[in-house]
Amino acid sequence: MTQDLPGLDPALAERFAAIVGARYAVRAEADIEPYVHEPRGLFAGVTSLVLRPGSVAEVSAIMKLASETRTPIVPQGGNTGLVGGQVPDRSGGQVVLSLSRLNRIREIDPVSNTVIAEAGVVLDVLHKAADEVDRLYPLSLASQGSCQIGGNLSSNAGGTGVVAYGNARELCLGVEVVLPTGEVFDDLRKLKKDNTGYDLKNLFVGAEGTLGVITAAVLKLYPKPKGREVAWVGLPSAEAALALFNTAQELGGGALTAFELIGRTPMSFAMRHIPDARPPLSGDWAWEVLMEISSGRSAEDARTLMEDILSAGFEADQVGDAVIAASLGQANEFWRLREMLPESQKPEGASIKHDISVPIASIPAFIERAAVVVAGVCAEARVVCFGHMGDGNLHYNISQPAGMEAAAFLALYRDMNKAVHDVVRSMNGSISAEHGIGQLKRDELIATAPPHAIELMRRVKSAFDPAGIMNPGKTI
Amino acid sequence: MTQDLPGLDPALAERFAAIVGARYAVRAEADIEPYVHEPRGLFAGVTSLVLRPGSVAEVSAIMKLASETRTPIVPQGGNTGLVGGQVPDRSGGQVVLSLSRLNRIREIDPVSNTVIAEAGVVLDVLHKAADEVDRLYPLSLASQGSCQIGGNLSSNAGGTGVVAYGNARELCLGVEVVLPTGEVFDDLRKLKKDNTGYDLKNLFVGAEGTLGVITAAVLKLYPKPKGREVAWVGLPSAEAALALFNTAQELGGGALTAFELIGRTPMSFAMRHIPDARPPLSGDWAWEVLMEISSGRSAEDARTLMEDILSAGFEADQVGDAVIAASLGQANEFWRLREMLPESQKPEGASIKHDISVPIASIPAFIERAAVVVAGVCAEARVVCFGHMGDGNLHYNISQPAGMEAAAFLALYRDMNKAVHDVVRSMNGSISAEHGIGQLKRDELIATAPPHAIELMRRVKSAFDPAGIMNPGKTI
Repeated sequence: MTQDLPGLDPALAERFAAIVGARYAVRAEADIEPYVHEPRGLFAGVTSLVLRPGSVAEVSAIMKLASETRTPIVPQGGNTGLVGGQVPDRSGGQVVLSLSRLNRIREIDPVSNTVIAEAGVVLDVLHKAADEVDRLYPLSLASQGSCQIGGNLSSNAGGTGVVAYGNARELCLGVEVVLPTGEVFDDLRKLKKDNTGYDLKNLFVGAEGTLGVITAAVLKLYPKPKGREVAWVGLPSAEAALALFNTAQELGGGALTAFELIGRTPMSFAMRHIPDARPPLSGDWAWEVLMEISSGRSAEDARTLMEDILSAGFEADQVGDAVIAASLGQANEFWRLREMLPESQKPEGASIKHDISVPIASIPAFIERAAVVVAGVCAEARVVCFGHMGDGNLHYNISQPAGMEAAAFLALYRDMNKAVHDVVRSMNGSISAEHGIGQLKRDELIATAPPHAIELMRRVKSAFDPAGIMNPGKTI
Repeated sequence: MTQDLPGLDPALAERFAAIVGARYAVRAEADIEPYVHEPRGLFAGVTSLVLRPGSVAEVSAIMKLASETRTPIVPQGGNTGLVGGQVPDRSGGQVVLSLSRLNRIREIDPVSNTVIAEAGVVLDVLHKAADEVDRLYPLSLASQGSCQIGGNLSSNAGGTGVVAYGNARELCLGVEVVLPTGEVFDDLRKLKKDNTGYDLKNLFVGAEGTLGVITAAVLKLYPKPKGREVAWVGLPSAEAALALFNTAQELGGGALTAFELIGRTPMSFAMRHIPDARPPLSGDWAWEVLMEISSGRSAEDARTLMEDILSAGFEADQVGDAVIAASLGQANEFWRLREMLPESQKPEGASIKHDISVPIASIPAFIERAAVVVAGVCAEARVVCFGHMGDGNLHYNISQPAGMEAAAFLALYRDMNKAVHDVVRSMNGSISAEHGIGQLKRDELIATAPPHAIELMRRVKSAFDPAGIMNPGKTI
């Protein structure tokens, strides 16, 4: 029974519930269930109360009460985060604040190329709203059917469009944030340029709800491309993939809208486990790349540019083989292959995942060196490497050896993490390129980041949230 | 004599001087002169000591001593800032810290498309270094022959390339900062993606030296365009210019690398005062636009794209007349016209300047409404409006009426500022789009920004610089 849980005083729970009304104060255990687990099942939290406010005023009232009573609040969007940033701890004393009912698109302005969306707008809903006014909101994630804008911003989400359009941070012009005290910081300005004081917006973006609650944001829109081409490319080596990336960027510039690198092992998993999957190429390639070109001019222009890039790649021996999708259906099929890669890893057993970035030029060296240390930790482990090459960001996942006990493999978690992250650090890379810190990497961040940086982050945290009620136990 | 000045104890000055050596401790009044005035002559400071450290270790030692002795430090780059952020106050107690000797390019990596430059590297020197490895550093400012990277970042400089490449902030991947205590915050990572904790980088960028001293930065490079076309366009109205901008962005995307709007009055001033200036077009246009297209593919491609945009503009009655520069010489001549606009305003007498931004869709309405309030303050004042239309950023300068006394006109400074800025605020715009706050707009920022925002900025300032020694009297 929820009332038996430690932590949250029932009378206080009543006061919180009164703010949103009984209907939107989730208190039955079964109803709470979806809010306290996260997609990978690594972190399961406990709470007796999930609040689903329907307005910024309600969020503000919740934070005011939380502030007065020092009640820890865990903001949550679509609950798709991969590092446990959005789930409560196991104390039972943390209240989950779901932003999903704040789901209005307040304004869309195709002339200024901006949209003002509330935190709970689902990414795909925003895609469709932009599409209706002939615009593009380019953030593109595997979870876009359920992830929400507030979470995208709080985690500074990345995805496949970053190479051309940047992360969630770069796509955000302004935010509305309910501060821990309940005050509303309103910076919803549709401005491309604004040099009036410190950049507070970028502190809230990526702060994983530890500094305040993002309730709405001004986001950038782009003209919708008139032509799009998707190619699948086979390459002899990671060096060749790097060279092709630079060729593509040189010729295509901002028209290069995706450059996804895929290793041999994830390709073999995909062929084995994705229903109706067929290999786009016939040969056996060390690496494959999904490359997308988008043209603002015309479909023919996208085609010509794609052909030019591939021709240049063939001539320079960067490309071994390539096929351009012959139809929208085939293009979607290529994308489905790429997006199902994480899924197709599951049937292969336990896995230890890394979300790393290194300077782009270091990618081939990273791949080489990381493979050696992985084998050092577990000789038969299988490296499942794929990711966003143009951002220097690899999902460097390790699947257990075929015959091994899952538990025995997972016992190597820390050693494997350390081995891979040590290579990352030696290359001045990042141990969390796009997924964030959350609970998963907090201890490691604190242990390995330069002490000044941690100290400065702590001071920022205290400056914004002196009572420490905003998503405690996350980030820092 | 400098030793008679109040504020800085001579014995303390000796200790500071010893850190950099006598040669680089500027103490003679005549030598100090260039460090205490700024380009517009609005702020003249006083100091008895300018330090010119030659290494990060020296900067660190200076800040350590400053911290121990609570000595205010004013960091300075190329001293081209327009808001007085880089000059000391008149107390004589502030020490100027010139970064100009930290002028090494530490590394340039054309594969990762990054460069690591020290704060004192002159922007044009960086342009040339990038050019030598066939790359582009796209920040483009009128002062690029003397402004420095540290100042560009501290002021989050804008300029003419922002429409395609973003501000100085967006071009920066990492910073090295000497903190007020002398500790070195080293975040010089060449990463496109990094979600490990709060975004401290973007706090230092744009902080006008009030949080720490930027000593080096990792900056983004881009492939050098293979083709460039510059056109001069005559337009019947601001609405037409806005429509043409959207046409150009739709067709050109990231290939649209400049879209500079110029009013009738600045054009007439230019024709009157710029040596050998000739009007690019024969007609009399309400507005003119300098538009630049850069192609990564080829010179022909840039030409075709420019022609397509202009054709579409003609067809939609957005364009009245247009000429594409027939040679590199003519393209440079077009750019010279644009860049000399501020200069050509000077012979017309006193001026009251504004550096504003509004949502792009609001630009025509702003132009209309601002003209009314300007006339309300001074009936015969001449509106000199030009700027970066694609960023919603206008330099909305007001020249005195032809016959008026300069002093009488300048007596209207506050009223004029208030009138124009009130229009900006009513449109949810910014009173400092790209020049920053410095001394010039500090009081206005504090008086008119939302109190929460000011309070949060003050907390950030205290968190980073509890003793208040970093560039006091600026920003906040």
